[in-house]
Amino acid sequence: MFLLLGGSGYVGSVFRRSLEARSIRYRVVARTEVDYTRRDHLIALIRDSRASFLINAAGYTGKPNVDACELHKADCLSGNAVLPGIIREACEACDLPWGHVSSGCIYTGCKPDGSGFTETDPPNFSFRTDNCSFYSGCKALGEECLTGSSRTYIWRLRIPFDSIDSGRNYLSKLMRYDRLLDATNSISQLDEFANACLECWARRVPFGTYNVTNTGAITAREVVEAIKMHLRVDRPFRFFESEAEFLRLAAKTPRSNCILDNRKLLATGIPMSDVRDAVASSLKAWKRES
Amino acid sequence: MFLLLGGSGYVGSVFRRSLEARSIRYRVVARTEVDYTRRDHLIALIRDSRASFLINAAGYTGKPNVDACELHKADCLSGNAVLPGIIREACEACDLPWGHVSSGCIYTGCKPDGSGFTETDPPNFSFRTDNCSFYSGCKALGEECLTGSSRTYIWRLRIPFDSIDSGRNYLSKLMRYDRLLDATNSISQLDEFANACLECWARRVPFGTYNVTNTGAITAREVVEAIKMHLRVDRPFRFFESEAEFLRLAAKTPRSNCILDNRKLLATGIPMSDVRDAVASSLKAWKRES
Repeated sequence: MFLLLGGSGYVGSVFRRSLEARSIRYRVVARTEVDYTRRDHLIALIRDSRASFLINAAGYTGKPNVDACELHKADCLSGNAVLPGIIREACEACDLPWGHVSSGCIYTGCKPDGSGFTETDPPNFSFRTDNCSFYSGCKALGEECLTGSSRTYIWRLRIPFDSIDSGRNYLSKLMRYDRLLDATNSISQLDEFANACLECWARRVPFGTYNVTNTGAITAREVVEAIKMHLRVDRPFRFFESEAEFLRLAAKTPRSNCILDNRKLLATGIPMSDVRDAVASSLKAWKRES
Repeated sequence: MFLLLGGSGYVGSVFRRSLEARSIRYRVVARTEVDYTRRDHLIALIRDSRASFLINAAGYTGKPNVDACELHKADCLSGNAVLPGIIREACEACDLPWGHVSSGCIYTGCKPDGSGFTETDPPNFSFRTDNCSFYSGCKALGEECLTGSSRTYIWRLRIPFDSIDSGRNYLSKLMRYDRLLDATNSISQLDEFANACLECWARRVPFGTYNVTNTGAITAREVVEAIKMHLRVDRPFRFFESEAEFLRLAAKTPRSNCILDNRKLLATGIPMSDVRDAVASSLKAWKRES
């Protein structure tokens, strides 16, 4: 039996789909039911439920976007930095293996040769590099709180999308925003992401950090071209002239745009499709919000 | 009526002495009674108690010393960074003025000309400068969570001591440790600190950040000489040869040693004695732990 924290969120709901498809018994834990931000309550829950694995898909992302984290610092720190540390302590007390949904947003750019960051590269978009959004700083601190944890997966998600139109889906966002920033990113098709995470434990791959992104990187302009083609959208899409203009006109805090290297995950035998294939597949199966 | 969070700690207990000496009605709030880490509970407490001011003397310092914070990152973040942010939100919701006990440990060293850091100098011993202990990083983040707060005092305490022998008293620590690090620091006599904090509100000095330290700076060797003289201690005190040796042999994480400028506080008319006078006074009134 799996425990799923944050099961009502965008990422958590895709974990539910994946768990159901695999006929894995799971329990979504709502904070109104068990306050899992309290170590003692979480330990009691783990013991009572006789869980065999725990997934933390809970976190504070800010609404409507990451700018809100600059105003809600306590919630952002609590949900993204403290909570993983508390879950770690509770899981260690119960010797429970678990996985944490982290984020690739703790990096910016790419390596000097144009390649992606690997799991051994230290974050370069964090409080410690003093160039980040409050959200990215908190996510990086969350990973720090897991340093030395023994039976833990840290799964780094990056700009999630899937085939269902929604306010959290990257593809929907590109269609809804008035103007776009053309940046190059590694991104994560969410069904593939959740499946890869579940496969980590199913295959008992070594615990540790994994960049769980589709293979390669893609520009926002390329994604827009795919949207135009697959969804037969004919209207023009407007772009900011530069990141500086974007920051001046549309954002309160810098955004992470980065390339991640997913070869550590691929080397375990767990597949992630090429980023362009993943975008095309999601658009081919596109379902408008009902 | 004042609310006092953290009233059972070393700093909180001196606030109690000061409040009693001033005949100010106050209520110590224990977390077992009201979980003030939850915004909604704290808001209800503030409303029910009809408090006119709140003091946050709660925080996580690590036992026996700051090294423990490297192992208890979630507690350290929660107590020192998230909690001030939650208190801020609760106090703002109730329009309650309040004061937060912060720390001067978010600085290291002194300015190039040898003078102390003022309240307008950004912290230089924090996550953002990537050179700090986890504790100092969390305290600096705690101040960040209060940025833009309107009716808040941030009182920076630095190496507290008073006349009562205890494991938290700097003078006692110097007598108990096997070997000492000779560093130069601004330090805070705790009775003067608590009185200065209460005076801030009594005199309605402008809200904002204040370095609440005794005037000047002092080396550990000078404090030891004062201990030897006033307490007639005849034994030798051993010192580490260098900070490098101290870090190698006795510490897991770097310590803040710094000089703070307290002139902003003095300019309000609130007195703080010279650091050497403050050490001498505490030693003249010394009471051994019973």
